[in-house]
Amino acid sequence: MLDAVCEVDLSRLLDPRGVAIVGASAEVRRIGGQPIRALKEFGYRGAIYPVNPKHGEIQGLPSYPDLASVPKPCDVALICVAGKLVPDLIRDCGRAGIGFAVVLSAGFREIGESGRELQRELDRAIRDSAVRVIGPNCQGLMSTVYANYCGFGAPFLYAHTRRGRVAMVTQSGGFGYAVMGLAEAEGLAFNHVISSGNEADLSSLDLIEALLRRDDTSLVAAYLEGVRDGRRLLRLGRTALQLGKPILVWKVGNSQAGRRAAASHTANLSAEYALYRAAFAQGGCLEVDDVGDLVDIARAFESGRVPAGDRVAVVSISGGAGVLAADRCDKAGLRLAALGEATTAELRRLLPAFSSVANPIDVTAQVFNDSAAFAQVVRVVLQDPEVDQLMVLTASIDGALAEQLAGSLAGLAAGSDKPLLVNSSAPLERSAEARRILAAHRIAVFDTPGRLVRAAAAVWEFERRRRLLLREPAPVPAPARRALQLPAGARTLSEHESKAVLRAYDIPCVPEVLVALQDLPGLTESPLGYPLVAKLDSADLPHKSEAGAVRVGLRDWGEVRQAVEQMLDSARRHSPQARIHGVLLQSMAQGTEVIVGATSNRYFGPTVVFGLGGIFAEVLNDVSIGFAPLDARQARGLIEQVQARSVLQGARGRPPADLDALADLISRVSRLIADHGDRIAEIDLNPVFVGAAGSGVQAADALVVLRDAGEQP
Amino acid sequence: MLDAVCEVDLSRLLDPRGVAIVGASAEVRRIGGQPIRALKEFGYRGAIYPVNPKHGEIQGLPSYPDLASVPKPCDVALICVAGKLVPDLIRDCGRAGIGFAVVLSAGFREIGESGRELQRELDRAIRDSAVRVIGPNCQGLMSTVYANYCGFGAPFLYAHTRRGRVAMVTQSGGFGYAVMGLAEAEGLAFNHVISSGNEADLSSLDLIEALLRRDDTSLVAAYLEGVRDGRRLLRLGRTALQLGKPILVWKVGNSQAGRRAAASHTANLSAEYALYRAAFAQGGCLEVDDVGDLVDIARAFESGRVPAGDRVAVVSISGGAGVLAADRCDKAGLRLAALGEATTAELRRLLPAFSSVANPIDVTAQVFNDSAAFAQVVRVVLQDPEVDQLMVLTASIDGALAEQLAGSLAGLAAGSDKPLLVNSSAPLERSAEARRILAAHRIAVFDTPGRLVRAAAAVWEFERRRRLLLREPAPVPAPARRALQLPAGARTLSEHESKAVLRAYDIPCVPEVLVALQDLPGLTESPLGYPLVAKLDSADLPHKSEAGAVRVGLRDWGEVRQAVEQMLDSARRHSPQARIHGVLLQSMAQGTEVIVGATSNRYFGPTVVFGLGGIFAEVLNDVSIGFAPLDARQARGLIEQVQARSVLQGARGRPPADLDALADLISRVSRLIADHGDRIAEIDLNPVFVGAAGSGVQAADALVVLRDAGEQP
Repeated sequence: MLDAVCEVDLSRLLDPRGVAIVGASAEVRRIGGQPIRALKEFGYRGAIYPVNPKHGEIQGLPSYPDLASVPKPCDVALICVAGKLVPDLIRDCGRAGIGFAVVLSAGFREIGESGRELQRELDRAIRDSAVRVIGPNCQGLMSTVYANYCGFGAPFLYAHTRRGRVAMVTQSGGFGYAVMGLAEAEGLAFNHVISSGNEADLSSLDLIEALLRRDDTSLVAAYLEGVRDGRRLLRLGRTALQLGKPILVWKVGNSQAGRRAAASHTANLSAEYALYRAAFAQGGCLEVDDVGDLVDIARAFESGRVPAGDRVAVVSISGGAGVLAADRCDKAGLRLAALGEATTAELRRLLPAFSSVANPIDVTAQVFNDSAAFAQVVRVVLQDPEVDQLMVLTASIDGALAEQLAGSLAGLAAGSDKPLLVNSSAPLERSAEARRILAAHRIAVFDTPGRLVRAAAAVWEFERRRRLLLREPAPVPAPARRALQLPAGARTLSEHESKAVLRAYDIPCVPEVLVALQDLPGLTESPLGYPLVAKLDSADLPHKSEAGAVRVGLRDWGEVRQAVEQMLDSARRHSPQARIHGVLLQSMAQGTEVIVGATSNRYFGPTVVFGLGGIFAEVLNDVSIGFAPLDARQARGLIEQVQARSVLQGARGRPPADLDALADLISRVSRLIADHGDRIAEIDLNPVFVGAAGSGVQAADALVVLRDAGEQP
Repeated sequence: MLDAVCEVDLSRLLDPRGVAIVGASAEVRRIGGQPIRALKEFGYRGAIYPVNPKHGEIQGLPSYPDLASVPKPCDVALICVAGKLVPDLIRDCGRAGIGFAVVLSAGFREIGESGRELQRELDRAIRDSAVRVIGPNCQGLMSTVYANYCGFGAPFLYAHTRRGRVAMVTQSGGFGYAVMGLAEAEGLAFNHVISSGNEADLSSLDLIEALLRRDDTSLVAAYLEGVRDGRRLLRLGRTALQLGKPILVWKVGNSQAGRRAAASHTANLSAEYALYRAAFAQGGCLEVDDVGDLVDIARAFESGRVPAGDRVAVVSISGGAGVLAADRCDKAGLRLAALGEATTAELRRLLPAFSSVANPIDVTAQVFNDSAAFAQVVRVVLQDPEVDQLMVLTASIDGALAEQLAGSLAGLAAGSDKPLLVNSSAPLERSAEARRILAAHRIAVFDTPGRLVRAAAAVWEFERRRRLLLREPAPVPAPARRALQLPAGARTLSEHESKAVLRAYDIPCVPEVLVALQDLPGLTESPLGYPLVAKLDSADLPHKSEAGAVRVGLRDWGEVRQAVEQMLDSARRHSPQARIHGVLLQSMAQGTEVIVGATSNRYFGPTVVFGLGGIFAEVLNDVSIGFAPLDARQARGLIEQVQARSVLQGARGRPPADLDALADLISRVSRLIADHGDRIAEIDLNPVFVGAAGSGVQAADALVVLRDAGEQP
């Protein structure tokens, strides 16, 4: 059931037989000098070819005048010269059979208008040569596994001898390598780290996917400002779940202030953060928001143990730490296990009277006098079938006692497949041996109970999503696309015209009739009964309420006539030029008001947004987002994601609403935007009235905005 | 304007002339042995008196048979013997003139019923002897300033030679000392750390206040599970603002799971977390939630610089880091400064074309080639009057370049009083000298941009609150207490009875009349006009809607009669025993529905809660909490704290609501509960209708619950 395998194979990039450095420098601190020194000194086993026509020798290696004269095989050209030379160099790579170019040079799209022509030239060179390019304007890549140091900056100045299974892709070179340094200082080890620059060819998503599929990678960290293909991000998240390897995403550029900065930085206009979060949540992308977070979660995954459920037991030598862990579990969606009776009885036997045998279990400072009892407690709790994973909090125990506990835990862990996570606040220098013992048995250790719980919750969240995906029935195939009669050009439709579009997809609307102004004097009675809503129908009044063009609760024909007079009066004052198609008479709908909207986003394609009416969606921003099309089951999931869902589920004595009918409506709207996103820019059903279960839904107002065919979303 | 100075003087506790260790042990790892070794070896300058009748000498020191025989002066007795011996030992302290006892022994209130008698005995001994006691069931105290190590656990096994100005009080000894160790590893230095145990005498609040007022303390960190006097916490927060010294609170026991654990741990039942958060926000308590958080915020305060406003400039060598900082500023309530024109022009001159001169300013990796320009940029930005503080992000720059930058920053900081914060991700071993230079100039350094912004935001938040306090007019004195006619005993009042209580405080209610059932047949018309609401009035039907005892929108007397029949029928089926006082006829009120409630909390005294009606308060939990009494201005503040406040302020084309009248109502309710919290357990006005500005407010429904006089809240 794995999706089609991504075609980019990075083997020759990460493990090149030869690297040519174009713009090679004898100065080991300069950008063209750093990588030569690093490749020479830190263990790289391939060939190093400095390219610089001005020198015969650089840093003790023969220098070549150009790429054509570089010996074969050479798999990577690292380019550190002025930007204007880059397109020709890419073509040179193609001719010389060099498959990859890593371009550190700047001066392209990222500097705005003045760099665009050069970018276009680069794009052509890439297309013509079929060379795969990292960058331009990137900081290069590092592969600790192959001692491949094709880049510059502080982490390229020393050897990275610890080789891990964590890969990283970063859209900001400077920041990404700073994160790498910090994470290494906290004990994480990487295999491949790639700075993607302005992504003229290989995108961050290409790189993430290629790294994720490698056998030497167990997870990928990504620092993202924005991606160009949001749907690919969705698919990639699914792939991550299928592979059982998470993508830890650090997403920035989310605030308005941040977005401005991101735009001027990589020229990747960031799409809405809400869409990203929705995409992350539907796959195997877990958001992190600082280095500690990244390190902790990676560490928890590295242990390789997956909990069977959300039930956690906490064993602590400090009541305070136990309380804290319990707090955090609650907040993070983990449950404190209700221990079995046998376990509780056994604990009572093992522990002194003033200990707490309820979960979180407080073995107290008595551990200093009796460490064997502590190990017994852990054993008993770990065996309890009510417990899915165990957190052991050892506070600042260090030295020999810490080693003794570590030995016991290692033995117990070996006899169980449940995750066993340890919090130790002991300083490194007084707990090195204990930590070594735990590491050897792949028991992850965390500085604080809070960081431990956060990491455990992330692992469980990934596992929960993975199971949902496995259980998920195949989506119901969307029915055939239906034809629409749409006027040409970009324009806003009137309510009545909008409803015609909706009806083509059988989206239920309130009963209504459009009466031309000239017909109105002849009518003497409502064809729909009372109470009645009257509106002016006009494409020029998208905000009818503000124009005074809506009246509700009309109780007889006299009131209708009077209302129409007043509305015409008010609308003419508000928008003298507005063309009025007629008067729209509608039945009054009843039920809970919700909003269903749809739009086509440049990066994520057609999307649907759902929220409860009025304040909920518009003031509190309590909405959920789905990627169209959605079948009815998926639409139901969307409804259940809003915070205020209980309003529809029967909170405060209300009858439960007709969620089936609402899900059906959302699904239809999603198909409409999915089928016709090329012409429909926006659909807004506000409000939709949701009746009690079984009584259906009705869109009371609707607005459809068209765009020109071919116009960019 | 400082509040009255707290009377506890801890000088002799922290800096004792002599310490007696009762239960002294020759074993240096045992609880009675650790402190003797620490006092002997780590620099303590007072006298050490082991007390143990079984030995003549312990760890090379003469041992005394009892406290009476210990030489004078001795200021502290550290008690490490079985709990049952403690009360007598406290009396011994009193007789021997030992002012403080630190009791490590357990077996009191914290173990439940079986420890209560011993606790009572201890309480009596404390009262009789006037000895000030830390504990029992605590882990002791450490004062690095005086090399005073009166406690046990890992941090008591080595000397703490770095002495800072940060004090800590912890309700969990094990966890608190673990936090101390971690924070020290991150570079924070403490002066006094005290574990408060089960607080038989000196409470955490006593200790926090005493430490906060000491000249050698610049801030106090506190790990709290719960306090017994919430009002004192409020006052203490105010004192912190007045002193300009923050209290960093790590509050746990907030979740239901956590509270259970806290109850079994220190027997301090935690009050509601919402009350704590409200109390923190009204004073100088800043919440932290992990060690990193604590360290970062303490470090930012230690620099001693306070921003004049919320406008931040960011200068970064990595665009990515700048984007991240901008994101975080936005989230944390800091504004990115709009740089002045002169600054922008100057930056354009200084920076290459592909840099960003907008804030956040990206000087790019060009800093590697031209570090002087970087210093120029910082200078120009620091001088801009639009900028209140500056964040400099240096990514992983290390070695000589880092030292050069540090030198420039130190020089610039010396010429400015604006806060200048640095983010450096360079490993310690490659940036020690740069860090030393920055530290010498009190420029705080943070691992990541996120941690930097979080800390800067905390400092600004404290300063913002401090200014609000200084500007705050004195509260309007509450008018005289009014007498109430209340029935004896604990009971729920009917709506009509409840309204009588409200009217005594002139709280506006909808016009209504209570008609006895037997009078009803004689009436032929509504005395209040139509539409009308009819309810059954009964103290036995506190939830009228569920009992079918409310009918709204009645349009004539026939409808009223019929409604009464139906209500009686329905109520009799629902609660056959309910005593019905009569039918309450009310005018239909109009406006926005809000909820105003009041209650008397065991720890925080009388409190008022406010929220918008229906879902907002009850489902979304969007409420604000105030401590009664509130004057009208304070009540207005309460209204402005809810998320959905815009509904009342005129969102979505609604007219602004009558906030003055609403604030007046809230203030009256707050005085009612403040004056009569001894009898009134609960007041619930739900809903109150708030009309448009100028048209007033009306409580439409009300419920007052009484308790027995003298009954505990």
